Amino acid sequence: MNSNRIASALVLALFAATSTTSSAEEAAPKPASPLYGVVVPEDYRHWQLVGVATEDAPLDELRAVVGNRIAIDAYRLGQLPFPDGAMLVKLAWKRQRSTEFPAATVPGQPTTVQVMVKDSKRYADSGGWGYGRFVDGQPVDKAQHQTCFACHNALVKARDDVFTKFAP
Amino acid sequence: MNSNRIASALVLALFAATSTTSSAEEAAPKPASPLYGVVVPEDYRHWQLVGVATEDAPLDELRAVVGNRIAIDAYRLGQLPFPDGAMLVKLAWKRQRSTEFPAATVPGQPTTVQVMVKDSKRYADSGGWGYGRFVDGQPVDKAQHQTCFACHNALVKARDDVFTKFAP
Repeated sequence: MNSNRIASALVLALFAATSTTSSAEEAAPKPASPLYGVVVPEDYRHWQLVGVATEDAPLDELRAVVGNRIAIDAYRLGQLPFPDGAMLVKLAWKRQRSTEFPAATVPGQPTTVQVMVKDSKRYADSGGWGYGRFVDGQPVDKAQHQTCFACHNALVKARDDVFTKFAP
Repeated sequence: MNSNRIASALVLALFAATSTTSSAEEAAPKPASPLYGVVVPEDYRHWQLVGVATEDAPLDELRAVVGNRIAIDAYRLGQLPFPDGAMLVKLAWKRQRSTEFPAATVPGQPTTVQVMVKDSKRYADSGGWGYGRFVDGQPVDKAQHQTCFACHNALVKARDDVFTKFAP
């Protein structure tokens, strides 16, 4: 083996190693919601803010909804229904009194991460949206997911089943 | 004039028109806060979410803090003090009961937009931060701005005078 061949062999070996690692990473299944097969989007914590909310006891939570670029653009344009590819994620935390500024409440322990994914063909039976509710990265059970569409559709059908408005 | 010259003239005319518009826009002074000369950043509504909060009555507000790339990177790295160029904006809205989902409160009328800009030289006398509080795009008075640094520094000096923690 001359030096060129050794170099080629090393490059091939490196490539094979990299490809294997990469395939292995891709192969690792992300936990998906029952009924919908929705997963937590990798980069959602970098998305832009749509709006915020509180939810009363017993949940007693602070919430923020963020959207991917497609969703944010649709909000800004007032585009309804949301186009395919739009994704919304609601972050939720237990609401706790600020220790530094007692007139404020602030996020405590994270509780759920809730995802809506628009795919009008795949989710044609649920208004075009797939739903996922996750606790500690794991989807909650099928029974809980069976309630998503009916509630959203009953209460905010006129806004394409999306509760959260874009906060100015 | 041959067609090339006409084309060149048109390009120049277009450029001149664009430049003029652009200069005129840039020349319009943005309202700046007293004491600090801080303005509302143009694109803050596109920034990433830091955290959310409520503030009790009489304000009775929902709040969200967003940060520019420098601020978000510093949060993620746990970098203190924040580097020069870091900017934080707190959006605030009157808190109102959701009409569609009565267990929730949601943003109502926007109230204040509050800005912190890190520039350790320019704002050496106030912990490196310049402050701006705006209502309807206009800065509030000098007396209100005189309270910013003292309160932040008294209560959260250990976090470089920044109240809002990065919410997971």
